[in-house]
Amino acid sequence: MIKAAIVGGTGYTGVELIRLLSAHPKVSLELLTSRSEAGTRADSIFPSLRGVSEIIFSDLGDDTLSKLQNCDVVFFATPHGVAMKQAEALTKAGVKVIDLAADFRLQSLSDFEHWYQQPHACPELLKSAVYGLPEVSRDSIAQALVVGNPGCYPTTAILGLKPIINLQNARAEQLIAKRIVIDAKSGVSGAGRQAKLSLNFAETSDNFAAYGVAGHRHLPEIEQGVNDILASQFDHDIRFLPHLVPMIRGMFSSIHLELTDEGTKIDWQAEFEKSYQDEFFIDVLPKGSFPDTRSVRASNRLRIAVYQDNARADLTILVVQDNLVKGAAGQAVQNMNVMFGLDETLGLDFAPIVP
Amino acid sequence: MIKAAIVGGTGYTGVELIRLLSAHPKVSLELLTSRSEAGTRADSIFPSLRGVSEIIFSDLGDDTLSKLQNCDVVFFATPHGVAMKQAEALTKAGVKVIDLAADFRLQSLSDFEHWYQQPHACPELLKSAVYGLPEVSRDSIAQALVVGNPGCYPTTAILGLKPIINLQNARAEQLIAKRIVIDAKSGVSGAGRQAKLSLNFAETSDNFAAYGVAGHRHLPEIEQGVNDILASQFDHDIRFLPHLVPMIRGMFSSIHLELTDEGTKIDWQAEFEKSYQDEFFIDVLPKGSFPDTRSVRASNRLRIAVYQDNARADLTILVVQDNLVKGAAGQAVQNMNVMFGLDETLGLDFAPIVP
Amino acid sequence: MIKAAIVGGTGYTGVELIRLLSAHPKVSLELLTSRSEAGTRADSIFPSLRGVSEIIFSDLGDDTLSKLQNCDVVFFATPHGVAMKQAEALTKAGVKVIDLAADFRLQSLSDFEHWYQQPHACPELLKSAVYGLPEVSRDSIAQALVVGNPGCYPTTAILGLKPIINLQNARAEQLIAKRIVIDAKSGVSGAGRQAKLSLNFAETSDNFAAYGVAGHRHLPEIEQGVNDILASQFDHDIRFLPHLVPMIRGMFSSIHLELTDEGTKIDWQAEFEKSYQDEFFIDVLPKGSFPDTRSVRASNRLRIAVYQDNARADLTILVVQDNLVKGAAGQAVQNMNVMFGLDETLGLDFAPIVP
Amino acid sequence: MIKAAIVGGTGYTGVELIRLLSAHPKVSLELLTSRSEAGTRADSIFPSLRGVSEIIFSDLGDDTLSKLQNCDVVFFATPHGVAMKQAEALTKAGVKVIDLAADFRLQSLSDFEHWYQQPHACPELLKSAVYGLPEVSRDSIAQALVVGNPGCYPTTAILGLKPIINLQNARAEQLIAKRIVIDAKSGVSGAGRQAKLSLNFAETSDNFAAYGVAGHRHLPEIEQGVNDILASQFDHDIRFLPHLVPMIRGMFSSIHLELTDEGTKIDWQAEFEKSYQDEFFIDVLPKGSFPDTRSVRASNRLRIAVYQDNARADLTILVVQDNLVKGAAGQAVQNMNVMFGLDETLGLDFAPIVP
Repeated sequence: MIKAAIVGGTGYTGVELIRLLSAHPKVSLELLTSRSEAGTRADSIFPSLRGVSEIIFSDLGDDTLSKLQNCDVVFFATPHGVAMKQAEALTKAGVKVIDLAADFRLQSLSDFEHWYQQPHACPELLKSAVYGLPEVSRDSIAQALVVGNPGCYPTTAILGLKPIINLQNARAEQLIAKRIVIDAKSGVSGAGRQAKLSLNFAETSDNFAAYGVAGHRHLPEIEQGVNDILASQFDHDIRFLPHLVPMIRGMFSSIHLELTDEGTKIDWQAEFEKSYQDEFFIDVLPKGSFPDTRSVRASNRLRIAVYQDNARADLTILVVQDNLVKGAAGQAVQNMNVMFGLDETLGLDFAPIVP
Repeated sequence: MIKAAIVGGTGYTGVELIRLLSAHPKVSLELLTSRSEAGTRADSIFPSLRGVSEIIFSDLGDDTLSKLQNCDVVFFATPHGVAMKQAEALTKAGVKVIDLAADFRLQSLSDFEHWYQQPHACPELLKSAVYGLPEVSRDSIAQALVVGNPGCYPTTAILGLKPIINLQNARAEQLIAKRIVIDAKSGVSGAGRQAKLSLNFAETSDNFAAYGVAGHRHLPEIEQGVNDILASQFDHDIRFLPHLVPMIRGMFSSIHLELTDEGTKIDWQAEFEKSYQDEFFIDVLPKGSFPDTRSVRASNRLRIAVYQDNARADLTILVVQDNLVKGAAGQAVQNMNVMFGLDETLGLDFAPIVP
Repeated sequence: MIKAAIVGGTGYTGVELIRLLSAHPKVSLELLTSRSEAGTRADSIFPSLRGVSEIIFSDLGDDTLSKLQNCDVVFFATPHGVAMKQAEALTKAGVKVIDLAADFRLQSLSDFEHWYQQPHACPELLKSAVYGLPEVSRDSIAQALVVGNPGCYPTTAILGLKPIINLQNARAEQLIAKRIVIDAKSGVSGAGRQAKLSLNFAETSDNFAAYGVAGHRHLPEIEQGVNDILASQFDHDIRFLPHLVPMIRGMFSSIHLELTDEGTKIDWQAEFEKSYQDEFFIDVLPKGSFPDTRSVRASNRLRIAVYQDNARADLTILVVQDNLVKGAAGQAVQNMNVMFGLDETLGLDFAPIVP
Repeated sequence: MIKAAIVGGTGYTGVELIRLLSAHPKVSLELLTSRSEAGTRADSIFPSLRGVSEIIFSDLGDDTLSKLQNCDVVFFATPHGVAMKQAEALTKAGVKVIDLAADFRLQSLSDFEHWYQQPHACPELLKSAVYGLPEVSRDSIAQALVVGNPGCYPTTAILGLKPIINLQNARAEQLIAKRIVIDAKSGVSGAGRQAKLSLNFAETSDNFAAYGVAGHRHLPEIEQGVNDILASQFDHDIRFLPHLVPMIRGMFSSIHLELTDEGTKIDWQAEFEKSYQDEFFIDVLPKGSFPDTRSVRASNRLRIAVYQDNARADLTILVVQDNLVKGAAGQAVQNMNVMFGLDETLGLDFAPIVP
């Protein structure tokens, strides 16, 4: 059994990790930490866990570090800035680290420091960290000591663009115009488990709003994904606009692209299907489908619909996922499976909840 | 024009008061105070007010008191305990006071101190304060200097029981059994405009919960309403259980009663209709109707459905209102209309919003 | 492997059964029928099933009957009145039948005919059918050929009352008063997957309503449960009032009871805990808990909170479940496990989805 | 008083018209028709209207036509294809016609017949009909006998683009690139008051979906608005993608534009403010605002936010309205006010409902 720990398990990605790891056939959840809830049973905070797990929150004291060092893998479901302070001690002890926050997502130090407003605690380790999108970087993840688990929006954007960028690179010709518009929508759980007036039900229900219009931390991560990780040979200019939807879970990214003349000659539906034919978690919907977020609710699937309109030189890619699963905790477990050489679907092969 | 002030206008009852008073043909909203938002335009906090009101929040400083004393009426949309500290200075200056919090609801000092955990600041003034339920105490309200605006749950409970208690008193015989079960449900706005984890959309949406099971502050107010204000000559034992509904506005109280033999001889539908035939805001629905909260959304109406089942000796009274209007700000304006001798429906005669 | 069929798999209980049976380690889903969708893949109607099941809807033709007769168990997720027409032919062929509709719930023919407005097709078989509440009738279910899967409301009511009725019977003294008020609330999925104006989002969202006030089909089923199945030695008079909550899944029943003097001497929290200590799916919450429906979302758990107030002779039992799982498809699978001698939790031991 | 009739008052735009016209100081609602509900009081179908209006649905018989001809204005809140069959008889009798469906929106017969799949019944009258967007065509509306009330999406798109197209025309230089992406989101009431499975609460709640991806009837109307009505001198290529949001009312259009070099020299915030400074219902939000749909809930306001990012040559226009008010019934009343020479805000000057 893989001995796992979760640092900071009181948020929504934390409780989702507890749910997933408790049911994982090859994992034993050994340690769960929380500064504020030390000594409390997790199921007293999350009654949904009654009968599922009896684990108790530990404080993150000196003692804890040695306990963490006895684990095989540590998940950080903490705010940005926590994992990078502990990662070195852990990796030196041979413990693998999966950070669900942003400490190991951006390879560029200056980008990290600009968007997260703090110096990086372990720039050397950052260099060897791998961006944890298995459908893109499976082999590197398998070798990684530290994985930066992707942000929810970037997961949809990068996977929604991958077949296109890859084909452009392979053909060495531009198939889509420079400008990429990503109009994205997220459920409220994406904002985290926090007491915040703007997240109050009476503020968010029966309402639709934009946010982060002037700039969102996920933009540099999407740009890194397209330009560096997918290594686009062509220049792309990405507009990213997130919105808040009155639903608990779910993320929907509408990617608006303009096809070049060459681009209109491609059968994009076929291209996407081929590109993802071996990916268990990526589902390219049949032509003409209307995706909706509930079709992936509480599951690790990500579904993609492709609309091509050559008369208008238009290509629209619609991507749905559960922001807490494929967009966070599920992808973290998928990364763990890859890092430990397990079947990638282990503990993640369950059906979405509909209705 | 009546010069009005609102103390503490940043909550939901506050913004609802601004909306209602701004449209009231006989009121000029002169002053709006808030400690935290002093100097800010109300419409910068509530963009819905853009084009409706240009009023700016004032601090509640020394200056403010004299400004309040220049008003004709002051509404307190503050937490419990604020109005009672200012009411005396205001009434001495001839200003009428309407408190939307609980300072002037409970006539019993010990009940107040037990349930609100603080001594009362002006017990003498409390004696002359009137419980502001116009359909019950219209004449006293017309004479009052200080009105305690009822709680939202008690409004539904007392108005739902009034025709019964009144008839019992008139006939001097018990028509319903001693035990009254009030199973009540409220939208989330009833918990106020506050940053609280338990009110987060991701916690409350797609969910239904009970709260205050062991005791809720509105219980003594309901008991006072039934026993003292309606002056029930019979002993009644009230069970009150509130629940939280994933909706913004709306309150639904299901009142379960057992009929005595005498009680089964009454045609309760007819009795309720007669009892409220002259009340503009109280609507007794036709026999067999299923009331829903949206039928009163954003309006000052309260609708009642009556189900009588003599075979089972059962009488069920269902009451719906908008908790922020008839349950708070609308009723406060209705009280103001009564206190100033205006037509009671002035500024309150608008249709509910459906869908 | 148990060969299973689902007749009528296009409703919400149908898709939930497909989800559960697809993941069940001892079941092979052989057949899925639907008159309207014959020939269609289930996952084209429910895209959530893509990658989960490739099953295709069959017509319910002559051919189908013989195919059903080759199964070990047939689930009817049909409207009332379908299962009873096929049950005899199936049981004669040795096939076990679990009906999720009402054909085999009410033992009284006249009750059935009164509430469901049709004659019963197989009154003889009805006599041997077992009401499928494993926590109440496990042994009979294990022997049954035909199981009437309980209605969602009755499941909460009967399990919420069982420890009380049982103790009354054991002590041979009345511990609660005659009158039992069950004020129940259900999510919208309880009304089924149907095109109906009153279920339109714009009609039901941000709204709370009562329905079935004058009488609901689940009342005789609750009465049968309390009086006959639990065999109450004391007379109980049950008031049942259902309401519709703007949430997808979830059911919350508030049971209001009055304690007799003897009843106040019981420690009901302890009594409930003891009563259900060996039941995997029944969770008696710690004293003082506020249950909410999301704590059981998408799981087969049913949670109970007990509030005792001797000063007011009040006992309040709050019961939550997922109406589609413990209230329907999950309970059906639990019954199947019992009928086939499997571990009762097989395929049902998963955590609720929160948030 | 203006004598008004509503043909087809059982939909959401119908009940909204009843609400608005009942409160309009210069209108008397004389006639309300419905084939299915003839003889029924409107408030028995919409209990929210109890105490607001006692009007009864009439059948649309021969008799009705003469009654309609006695009115000053007839609103058609019917499906597409009804108004065009009656408009000629009405206008000949001097009755003004406002069609809330699409019969008089598209000037191009072939566009109409392509998108609405039926021949036009009165092509001659269509030529003289005016597209009813007062902020664009106030003077023509004032003279019109027949007004085609705009679709909800086109209202947001055309008003969101007007200041830009106008300035381009005035300067005779292209300020934005050819390609315009309109990523739009609507509440469920936009789909109408109908029994449809896909609109069932359990299907739409806690979900986000795209629809009409391959083509939506509002696209030609937006194209007509930009190219013909605003008379753009530059070629624009419009992508329009609608989505369904789990909220009752509200529409949010995100318009993504690329600035030309010339375009980056404009201060677009100032330009929008100037453009709409005299428009009561159009509110250009202060720089940096995040608009949300609830800020216009149940009101006739439309709010616009402008985000300009010269470094990325990006201009984002966000537009919010209530789809049933400014997007339908409110705009119809605004058109009526213009057609009858009344103050344009009469009966429409009320605050949005928040929370």
